[in-house]
Amino acid sequence: MTSGKINVTVENIFPLIKKFLYSDHEIFLRELISNATDATLKLKHLTSIGEAKVEYGNPIIEVRIDKENKKLHIIDQGIGMTKEEVEKYINQVAFSGAEEFLEKYKDTAKDAGIIGHFGLGFYSAFMVADKVEIFTKSYKGEPAAHWTCDGSPEYSLEETEKTDRGTEIVLHIAEDSTEFLEDYKIRELLTKYNKFMPVPIKFGTHEEGEGDDKKTVDTIINNPAPAWTKQPADLTEEDYKNFYRELYPMQFEDPLFHIHLNVDYPFNLTGILYFPKLNADMQIQKDKIQLYQNQVFVTDNVEGIVPDFLTMLKGVIDSPDIPLNVSRSYLQADGNVKKISNYITRKVADKLKSLFNDNRADFESKWNDIKIVLEYGMLSEDKFYDKAGAFMLYPTVDGKYYTLEELKEASKELQTDKDGNLVILYASNKDLQDSYIVAAKEKGYQVLLLDSPIVSHLIQKLESDNEKLTFARVDADHINNLIKKEENQISKLSEDEQKNLQTFVENIIPKEKYTVKLEAMDSTAEPFIITQPEFMRRMKEMSQTGGGGMFGMGNFPEMYNLIINTNSDLASDLISENNEEVKNEKIKQALDLAKLSQGLLKGEELTAFVKRSFKNLK
Amino acid sequence: MTSGKINVTVENIFPLIKKFLYSDHEIFLRELISNATDATLKLKHLTSIGEAKVEYGNPIIEVRIDKENKKLHIIDQGIGMTKEEVEKYINQVAFSGAEEFLEKYKDTAKDAGIIGHFGLGFYSAFMVADKVEIFTKSYKGEPAAHWTCDGSPEYSLEETEKTDRGTEIVLHIAEDSTEFLEDYKIRELLTKYNKFMPVPIKFGTHEEGEGDDKKTVDTIINNPAPAWTKQPADLTEEDYKNFYRELYPMQFEDPLFHIHLNVDYPFNLTGILYFPKLNADMQIQKDKIQLYQNQVFVTDNVEGIVPDFLTMLKGVIDSPDIPLNVSRSYLQADGNVKKISNYITRKVADKLKSLFNDNRADFESKWNDIKIVLEYGMLSEDKFYDKAGAFMLYPTVDGKYYTLEELKEASKELQTDKDGNLVILYASNKDLQDSYIVAAKEKGYQVLLLDSPIVSHLIQKLESDNEKLTFARVDADHINNLIKKEENQISKLSEDEQKNLQTFVENIIPKEKYTVKLEAMDSTAEPFIITQPEFMRRMKEMSQTGGGGMFGMGNFPEMYNLIINTNSDLASDLISENNEEVKNEKIKQALDLAKLSQGLLKGEELTAFVKRSFKNLK
Repeated sequence: MTSGKINVTVENIFPLIKKFLYSDHEIFLRELISNATDATLKLKHLTSIGEAKVEYGNPIIEVRIDKENKKLHIIDQGIGMTKEEVEKYINQVAFSGAEEFLEKYKDTAKDAGIIGHFGLGFYSAFMVADKVEIFTKSYKGEPAAHWTCDGSPEYSLEETEKTDRGTEIVLHIAEDSTEFLEDYKIRELLTKYNKFMPVPIKFGTHEEGEGDDKKTVDTIINNPAPAWTKQPADLTEEDYKNFYRELYPMQFEDPLFHIHLNVDYPFNLTGILYFPKLNADMQIQKDKIQLYQNQVFVTDNVEGIVPDFLTMLKGVIDSPDIPLNVSRSYLQADGNVKKISNYITRKVADKLKSLFNDNRADFESKWNDIKIVLEYGMLSEDKFYDKAGAFMLYPTVDGKYYTLEELKEASKELQTDKDGNLVILYASNKDLQDSYIVAAKEKGYQVLLLDSPIVSHLIQKLESDNEKLTFARVDADHINNLIKKEENQISKLSEDEQKNLQTFVENIIPKEKYTVKLEAMDSTAEPFIITQPEFMRRMKEMSQTGGGGMFGMGNFPEMYNLIINTNSDLASDLISENNEEVKNEKIKQALDLAKLSQGLLKGEELTAFVKRSFKNLK
Repeated sequence: MTSGKINVTVENIFPLIKKFLYSDHEIFLRELISNATDATLKLKHLTSIGEAKVEYGNPIIEVRIDKENKKLHIIDQGIGMTKEEVEKYINQVAFSGAEEFLEKYKDTAKDAGIIGHFGLGFYSAFMVADKVEIFTKSYKGEPAAHWTCDGSPEYSLEETEKTDRGTEIVLHIAEDSTEFLEDYKIRELLTKYNKFMPVPIKFGTHEEGEGDDKKTVDTIINNPAPAWTKQPADLTEEDYKNFYRELYPMQFEDPLFHIHLNVDYPFNLTGILYFPKLNADMQIQKDKIQLYQNQVFVTDNVEGIVPDFLTMLKGVIDSPDIPLNVSRSYLQADGNVKKISNYITRKVADKLKSLFNDNRADFESKWNDIKIVLEYGMLSEDKFYDKAGAFMLYPTVDGKYYTLEELKEASKELQTDKDGNLVILYASNKDLQDSYIVAAKEKGYQVLLLDSPIVSHLIQKLESDNEKLTFARVDADHINNLIKKEENQISKLSEDEQKNLQTFVENIIPKEKYTVKLEAMDSTAEPFIITQPEFMRRMKEMSQTGGGGMFGMGNFPEMYNLIINTNSDLASDLISENNEEVKNEKIKQALDLAKLSQGLLKGEELTAFVKRSFKNLK
């Protein structure tokens, strides 16, 4: 038996690192600027605890393009490295200096914001450069060092003349990566990844002032202290709005409100989420939350981190505790990520509750813009559902807003049917269901306006969680049948007359679409009414919007009831009408009018109706 | 000056490989089965060229769970390894045996389908196992070898007793990965990644036959020769449909048609794409094309590889030439990927053309299911647009289908206006625009039915590419104005009468919504007509469906024209009517009817209209 150690040779692994370390080559700049930031923050920490006896000053990081010589420079004024440190940190792949630093200074350095993780980041330079140089001078004052490597993986290391403290990385950009010598490209990358990094980053200069006061000043590309890194108490409403505009310069509308996230146990997370005004097209709204780690931009895909229903929000999340470069299924199984997701859900629910309690009128005015997010949240997150009772609103067609408890209270007297069920009436469209709404309001009933696409799912859930509570759309039946009371209306027509009328009408209208029902109602109610039974319609809607309902019901044909009010004048009129043709005409016209009320008179039928009516007008 | 070699130590790199090699831990099984497949196919190749003097037989790969001992076995009957080969291929991370093999046998092995790339795959076992063993016996007949490693990275290697040729990998599954000891999980992974791999994979057994004939047989989880690996000439229509069902077992509808992809220069690509019947909700339809490399499933996200407009298709693409683990922006810049994308576009266009030429009636019958894909293709891919003229259809409201050239030919005589522009009329909704369609058809005009959401973008493009061709929706103006001819209708009303009527009407109707226009038309045309000008409407639609249109126009209020036919009986009637109240009532009723025709009579107005009409009926 032999034994030994598995062997990794640099010749084998180096090409892999260069090619596959990151799928996106542009990442190299983010990595190098992260290193420069770390070097600066380390110096800040060492001076603050008195370990480094130098002046910290106001260090910046500079990025400079030398197009002529095809070089890109990244220059910091940080801690620097001695020759020995270069040996140790650079020549050993995957030896992370940041981890060692944090270990050594763990008591004091915890909040220093140092980024580095594995020490592989530096090597990402070879994804775009065929030669890399380091000029570096340590704060310790030893001679500066100059390291060169053409990615072969041979390197050389010698003393050099550099006098300024800090590190300068020089990338000799490869032929296939010359885009990284373009001003616009580097500016784009800096804006994307480094817009909120904690050390000022200079890229070029610009003119400021007029006439004699005119002077050239450094262009600083980042905001080193973005709003989410501050305490909520130190920020005004205006600060939050300004930061929103900083995040989304192309967005002209103010957000509705914000939620400041700030937790450091059991995980570390800061951030600000905004409820934007939602447009009709919600697809476009996704992927607007930006994920940062220690102020470094990582991604705008927060799927799996932020609960699904909140991905329509905007804003920033910053957490070093979210694993990167992992798949969605892995993310969802990760315990920390689950906790983060739950925390965000809870904070959003708490904020909504306090907005509701603090200024209900204002909250109501925003309802239309936020309801779809909240409804989706109630359906998809049980924890949110449990909290939502406290602020979830149910608006009426008249613009009143009830919580579910208030609604029960307001409607229980009139809307409890003979079996003790509280029947909540709703409309999905004020315009299309107006005549039915009018009929319900005449009885003093409350009519909700529930017009979201997922509302059938929501009321299905509310019904199953609230005993003796049912929902019915106003056009699901005649109002007397939607909420059945003990009293019985007496029909003006005899049984025989009713039978005759029913047979006559059934012969004229298409049987496969309408079920004819005769009902004794108020004489003032419409003579012909078309309704669509609640259960079938809701099941169809649910299976069309995905999930729930009954299998295949989405493709069921529409079925309607035609209710004839036997106490209407028209019914009596039809009974006494002896001219069959006139009777026919009247029934057809009445059916057309009932269809109009239910939005069913269309196409040729509508054209004919209009033509006939124009003729009658003359 | 010192120089040296950058150092990679296994202690530093091994944890990274274990943790970050793949974001998805489940990938380990795919990698190990790929290795087993390679080992088998290598043996096949060596026996076929006479280099290995053993019987190839019918080798299979077996996956076996030993739940009690927390072990997972992957067993092949392939080429095996000698102790020296284990030293060389296993103990050296990132030394790919497959690459060496392909290099050595490059003349003969080209089509052997060997998968391996970097030799890192084996180490993915450590993502789920805390100890890995290899038992292997080479076809060369030397003593078998037993390798063990607990991921420390120390290994041991010794001779062992194994007599069967081939390799057995034993994973001692780690505590945090016990899900990979579950039957359902392994079956799920095998079905996801290995369903079409070229060597039979056994996972468990099942019973077959009845009574005395009953016997236990191996369960083979994969189809080693899926349809896309065969020649189109060897496949029937039924074979293609069967393969569709194999790919999508939950899909009950047959595809509309398929496109067999098969190219080996300048890149290698095979596959079968299917046009599915599209449902209304297209969001759900995306991500249905599966990407394979040498029959190994890679992903179902083909964004960037397949042109955007074809991501609504289903099927399989198999190509070893698509770079994996790279970002979308990198993919889009990759020359090979661009060529692949162009090839797919061309093949789809060619197939559509031949379907159109071979059986136009059948093609027309499928139009409604495919048009949205084609329209989107015309807008997003210039190369597709150029080819689409040959098969793109424009259906009329009466179910006739024209190509653009045929349409020009069929309508130029009647529909060329006095300025020489050919005006193509279209409707977006047969029901809602019926009265306008009727009016156009009475003149003998063709009316297209263009009801896709992106149609405004498409006609905008067609207009800009075809001189003297314009599109107008039928309700954009009165038909006489949509296609203006030389003749002038004479008005029955005097100028004074017209002026009086206009003033009277303008006083009654809301000015901010309607512009009143008096026109001399046929006396049989409707007396009041509401139209919505083409330009404004189209710009609004374009900015609502994203891109194009004019900035901010999506939120413009709707503006309509109210056209009064001065030659109608109603117009004369109104002029001679002296009772102001009656005149008012008539105008209001006429406006209501015109609104009904344009779908604008809603809510309270509609309820009042119906109530009034019911009253008139009695």
